[in-house]
Amino acid sequence: MAWNETKLTVVGAVCNDIRTRTTNDGEPMLFFTIASHERKFNRDTETWENGNSVLVKVKAFRKLAEHAGASLVPGDRVVATGRVYTNKYEVDGQTRSDLEMEASCIGPDLTICPVTIERGGQLAAVAA
Amino acid sequence: MAWNETKLTVVGAVCNDIRTRTTNDGEPMLFFTIASHERKFNRDTETWENGNSVLVKVKAFRKLAEHAGASLVPGDRVVATGRVYTNKYEVDGQTRSDLEMEASCIGPDLTICPVTIERGGQLAAVAA
Amino acid sequence: MAWNETKLTVVGAVCNDIRTRTTNDGEPMLFFTIASHERKFNRDTETWENGNSVLVKVKAFRKLAEHAGASLVPGDRVVATGRVYTNKYEVDGQTRSDLEMEASCIGPDLTICPVTIERGGQLAAVAA
Amino acid sequence: MAWNETKLTVVGAVCNDIRTRTTNDGEPMLFFTIASHERKFNRDTETWENGNSVLVKVKAFRKLAEHAGASLVPGDRVVATGRVYTNKYEVDGQTRSDLEMEASCIGPDLTICPVTIERGGQLAAVAA
Repeated sequence: MAWNETKLTVVGAVCNDIRTRTTNDGEPMLFFTIASHERKFNRDTETWENGNSVLVKVKAFRKLAEHAGASLVPGDRVVATGRVYTNKYEVDGQTRSDLEMEASCIGPDLTICPVTIERGGQLAAVAA
Repeated sequence: MAWNETKLTVVGAVCNDIRTRTTNDGEPMLFFTIASHERKFNRDTETWENGNSVLVKVKAFRKLAEHAGASLVPGDRVVATGRVYTNKYEVDGQTRSDLEMEASCIGPDLTICPVTIERGGQLAAVAA
Repeated sequence: MAWNETKLTVVGAVCNDIRTRTTNDGEPMLFFTIASHERKFNRDTETWENGNSVLVKVKAFRKLAEHAGASLVPGDRVVATGRVYTNKYEVDGQTRSDLEMEASCIGPDLTICPVTIERGGQLAAVAA
Repeated sequence: MAWNETKLTVVGAVCNDIRTRTTNDGEPMLFFTIASHERKFNRDTETWENGNSVLVKVKAFRKLAEHAGASLVPGDRVVATGRVYTNKYEVDGQTRSDLEMEASCIGPDLTICPVTIERGGQLAAVAA
């Protein structure tokens, strides 16, 4: 039972760092970063420009890790939602921090392209 | 420019009411309801039970409407995010209200099954 | 333990319907509606106008109910966050529904006016 | 006009670093960090423990900056909502990053204590 969790939804691109791992319990895990860029309309140039960006390190477990790992490649645009927290770590004696999300849901953004949902649970490419 | 929009993210099942339409400008529109159920663990019976539910009437436009309409069928589990508002309407002289969302992003929930993302922009089934 | 709760944050005005009650366990409860209006800038008239609105029926319990009941009056602008669900009920044999929130946090919006926080736990007005 | 902003709501304690500044336009600005801790129930010890934490650097402008600066002290528990982004900066030639929020609303958490809302716009303490 948990209380006062901080929930976030982010829409952005899957970065180059997709990694899979297996937990000590034998469960699949998936890690990747989502980079989300604000888009702002510049009235002077009449063009859209990038505004601020947010980077979120996403962790997924079990079925979500398995299916996201089988479906996503770097550059895909996704929506992810889950609880977030600050992850502190050391690099060369320096303390750094990332915003980390334990995702409860990840989906490819249907704004960008359609998908074939593998309702039988197997990727067509895998089944073939 | 808009201020004080209320944003919501909901994860749930696509209901039986998927409808498509074309706007006066010739743009595709899509409507469907998402039903999201809380799941609660009952310690007495040691089973998971449904808690409260929320129904959200989702509207999507343009590419998102087109791709979501081509990808989703009733029963699919999705995540949707966007601005929400109360939609009031009359039925037999009675005022009713729904929670409506103008979705900025919809994606199938990868917790349930993997997907094949049609990165070329065409559904395999359509291309075939 | 609960899973798949739908969380919402809303910023808006406290409506005219503040009610307090005591639960069967002797705990204070508070009910009121928040009305939140989008504000849109009309470039033709160069004025701000109301856009869509969302109505949320807020429930609070225990200390939050007690303190919010002692602090808020209709018209105050607040931010509230919590889990939301659709509440169905009957009026004259007709099914109606509201969006209801069990608030985990409510606070007066400091954009509108400053506050004196009664850190000793008693309202100055009550202590006087 | 902006698109794809990432919105966050966080509930936590105001840290020791409240600072005010005036922008080049003569507008008040306020900065402080919110530290939010998850609380988890440990069934073995039957006590509540801190889980993960998230740190958010909050920026506020104009009336919100003025009123929050006049109302809040370190240790106060608040709710804040706004758009978030990753702020990168250099310390001794090292790149660091924080999660930063431009707050659209901040309010003291009424779970903790009641407040007197200064509806005339002046703090009682200031007016006295």
